[in-house]
Amino acid sequence: METKSKEKKTKYPSELRQDLVTGDWVVIATGRSKRPEDFFAEREEIERIEKDEDKKCFFCFPEETGQEKDVLIYANSEGDWSLRVFPNKYPALLRGKKINHWEEGPYFAMDGVGYHELVVTRDHEKSIGQLDVLAVAEIIDAYQDRYISLMNKKSVNYIDIFHNHGKSAGASIVHPHSQLVAIPVISPYVKAELDGAEIYYRQNKQCVYCAMISWEKEKKLRVVFENDEYLAFCPFSSRVAFEVWVIPKKHKPYFERTGKEEKIKVAEALQGVLEKIYKRLNNPDYNFYIHTSPCDGKDYPHFHWHIEILPKTSVWAGFELSTGVEISTIEPEESARYLREKML
Amino acid sequence: METKSKEKKTKYPSELRQDLVTGDWVVIATGRSKRPEDFFAEREEIERIEKDEDKKCFFCFPEETGQEKDVLIYANSEGDWSLRVFPNKYPALLRGKKINHWEEGPYFAMDGVGYHELVVTRDHEKSIGQLDVLAVAEIIDAYQDRYISLMNKKSVNYIDIFHNHGKSAGASIVHPHSQLVAIPVISPYVKAELDGAEIYYRQNKQCVYCAMISWEKEKKLRVVFENDEYLAFCPFSSRVAFEVWVIPKKHKPYFERTGKEEKIKVAEALQGVLEKIYKRLNNPDYNFYIHTSPCDGKDYPHFHWHIEILPKTSVWAGFELSTGVEISTIEPEESARYLREKML
Repeated sequence: METKSKEKKTKYPSELRQDLVTGDWVVIATGRSKRPEDFFAEREEIERIEKDEDKKCFFCFPEETGQEKDVLIYANSEGDWSLRVFPNKYPALLRGKKINHWEEGPYFAMDGVGYHELVVTRDHEKSIGQLDVLAVAEIIDAYQDRYISLMNKKSVNYIDIFHNHGKSAGASIVHPHSQLVAIPVISPYVKAELDGAEIYYRQNKQCVYCAMISWEKEKKLRVVFENDEYLAFCPFSSRVAFEVWVIPKKHKPYFERTGKEEKIKVAEALQGVLEKIYKRLNNPDYNFYIHTSPCDGKDYPHFHWHIEILPKTSVWAGFELSTGVEISTIEPEESARYLREKML
Repeated sequence: METKSKEKKTKYPSELRQDLVTGDWVVIATGRSKRPEDFFAEREEIERIEKDEDKKCFFCFPEETGQEKDVLIYANSEGDWSLRVFPNKYPALLRGKKINHWEEGPYFAMDGVGYHELVVTRDHEKSIGQLDVLAVAEIIDAYQDRYISLMNKKSVNYIDIFHNHGKSAGASIVHPHSQLVAIPVISPYVKAELDGAEIYYRQNKQCVYCAMISWEKEKKLRVVFENDEYLAFCPFSSRVAFEVWVIPKKHKPYFERTGKEEKIKVAEALQGVLEKIYKRLNNPDYNFYIHTSPCDGKDYPHFHWHIEILPKTSVWAGFELSTGVEISTIEPEESARYLREKML
């Protein structure tokens, strides 16, 4: 965030551009660009390309398919790798030491400097709900390890960790993988939660997430899973059918400070919920992500980190895109009841 | 917004629930509910249902397929209908005079009272880009007519007008149609624009949209279409490839006050852009919607109504869902250049 200039100096293949009205940011990443005419290729052409890609899995054979070298690798006692993290070959943000800010007329933008990494488990098919708890704990370990490595970098103010499962949820490669994107700005959705949590605390002298947890634990209307340390429930204002949050029961603002034993417990909760979703809902596509406090050097004592899981039950169409109001066709209480039921 | 009660009295098939952290709203509309096990039916089953629905089009034969009576119908000189508006058979919000507010523990909600209507053009296949300008002007007329009929209803504070084209953009019925949803709350995306426009005005003594229009008209870097009254351009911070806004060149806060001759001009601009998108991009799926000032009785002198068109070029996956930061892989300047080129 060092250099401020009045004009764009060099062409950078990733830019963060600010919406002049709302202040939100978008990433324009032309490094992975297609020609304009390729955006809407014929369906057959797309299917042909996808078939070709299936031939040699990028993640089963990372070296042979030209991935960059691992930044982290976990191996079992026989020396076989079980999990590895490497930089995304087609990153949305690019590593760099200096961020140039620039203007164009009334608009503001900056170079898209950051980190974009992939967290890959070994098995080509098994998704998180099908893994055992220890394997999932290894994934949580890797998230935390990479988070801590990147959080103090000069260009990094927020680290987003997310997982896309299935094509309709945006997973372009079938081999299970999570992603970690470290960005120089605080994203608007996280900001809305940070601000909301602070306002609620000022008005109620209580963390808003702790208030929810206490109510959900007492009523058990929307609880899907619970262990000593974590609660999983369908939120009262679920945006999609079968939305589930996994949250530490004690007040914890920072994901990266999760202790060793807690990590086993969060793995148990995440795996438990994803297994229910896998079995009860016929292996649907889904996204999940972590919302945690920014790593911008400020304190966020009123935030409470958590995981949000969004099964892909519907397309967000004109109404949702226009208003930001989502329409769900099942009550969260009913979603939770259905997921909670004894597994087949 | 009359009744406030401490608990939920009767089961209402549509609810507006508020997110306790962000203040955003979701609609839980169980009237069109499926059983939990139907959310993720096998693909073949879904395709079978879709095929069945294709047999008799709901919109070609509205009476025979059990649609409610029109609230508006336009006919040609021979008496054949060319456009009709009727209430959605599966509404997200339900008509009602009184809105019950209720609480559950820390949470807030209200009955999902509002209006949900469909604007249907006659031709079963021709999308807006393929219609002539006068037919599109008729659509704009219908939007305005219904807007004015609903804007003063007691339960209505915002009216969202949108259009989904193609299955990946959420159109569940192929016959071209737009939707109008009148809701009791101001939606978060519109609120972000209203607030942003007001802040910009206070700081710059100018409408933020007028500032953009003036820059875009001068530079022509991102202009796609222009006539006397309207400008169409790819916004500087486009969220998706080939995003286009259509906006009145003069400062106009309220869509519903669009004059008769202006309506022809907005139809010309909307049709012109959608025709370019249809021809240049191989008939992609898209959403468009109108952002205009709320009809909540307050004045919004700093807002500037416009249409936002979002071609469906990608799935919003974990990163976008988590952060609200969209990733686009083509520069808006390149999108505009490609759309602007002489049509084939």
